[in-house]
Amino acid sequence: MTSPAVIDLIGVLAYGELVSFERSASDAVLAPSLEDKIALSSMAVSEFHHFEALCRFLKDRGVDPLVAMQPFVEPLNTFHNNMTPRDWLEGLAKTYVGDAIAADFYRAMSVHLDAETSAIVNEVVQDSQRSTFAVERLREAIAQDPKVGGRLALWGRRLMGEMIGQATLVAGSRPALRDLVAQASSEQAISGLVNQLTVAHSRRMDALGLAS
Amino acid sequence: MTSPAVIDLIGVLAYGELVSFERSASDAVLAPSLEDKIALSSMAVSEFHHFEALCRFLKDRGVDPLVAMQPFVEPLNTFHNNMTPRDWLEGLAKTYVGDAIAADFYRAMSVHLDAETSAIVNEVVQDSQRSTFAVERLREAIAQDPKVGGRLALWGRRLMGEMIGQATLVAGSRPALRDLVAQASSEQAISGLVNQLTVAHSRRMDALGLAS
Repeated sequence: MTSPAVIDLIGVLAYGELVSFERSASDAVLAPSLEDKIALSSMAVSEFHHFEALCRFLKDRGVDPLVAMQPFVEPLNTFHNNMTPRDWLEGLAKTYVGDAIAADFYRAMSVHLDAETSAIVNEVVQDSQRSTFAVERLREAIAQDPKVGGRLALWGRRLMGEMIGQATLVAGSRPALRDLVAQASSEQAISGLVNQLTVAHSRRMDALGLAS
Repeated sequence: MTSPAVIDLIGVLAYGELVSFERSASDAVLAPSLEDKIALSSMAVSEFHHFEALCRFLKDRGVDPLVAMQPFVEPLNTFHNNMTPRDWLEGLAKTYVGDAIAADFYRAMSVHLDAETSAIVNEVVQDSQRSTFAVERLREAIAQDPKVGGRLALWGRRLMGEMIGQATLVAGSRPALRDLVAQASSEQAISGLVNQLTVAHSRRMDALGLAS
């Protein structure tokens, strides 16, 4: 029997990949060149294949993926609707910030999961090709126009704040998932993990030359 | 040596698939249910794999896909920017109308192509899964609210008009492609093919209960 906490964790990851797919593909419309459009589209398609792999994982365990994802549809949609990028650079920064925080979160969790669940989580999360692409493009843009940095720094802070806000709402309504996350956190409290993710986020923003 | 007309034809088809991918994936954001969102996303991903197959076809013949697609970027972007659907049903109607006209066009062309080119064109165009999905959803929506039909009929006319407009611009700037299309048209004139496509479009609109 797959535990309710693991079903929740794979459900939120699956819906996250699906939405990330459609948002990345939408952002590809904003790409300044055909090469960038193709690169981002190709990365979006990888997200969709991750989503399919997670659905298979759930189905193999007798779990309906639609049911597993449902509790996370509203918080993730709200996050994306509140944080719709206004241009290509905001889209890249969102991809970079979001992927990195998600990767940190799932990596912290995976240590506390059974081997099979841990394996699929790592498989889906490890793919950092998109982050490398985003960082390269962001560095170029900030070097060309330092004003861009100020705008993106503000955007990075808003992204982190909105992610924490939606995650807090989810934790409130999904007790099994909340307990699993607390176990994986320092001092056995979700606030420990939030601090850890915030510190890593700040370090990444600094590395990009953005005040976090 | 691949002829300039065939390079143009595969180039416009490839860019058409790429843009169709990103627009379908964007439309998935508007889906009324998770099932519909997944179905449309999965069909968008198929378009991207078609795009990849067409790029491989060009590369195998020593043609840079970026160069082959470039002349069609602006007209296709203009078409999609002018015809951005305002809701889920307009998105479906656009998919249905656009896919069907494209399929009619490429089918008419493929008879006049060499075997390999004809094979890849048919492979990419034949996939009508998306149209079936769109027609089912459109029929349901029109049955539930006949007013929807009037709005979509107008939208269908605008789509056809805009497609003819952009295609005319393309024909003006790509003489080799224009000649190939003229050969494949009744009475050896592009207007013959445009009439043929318009008649088929009207028939499809009628079948949906929409005045064309």
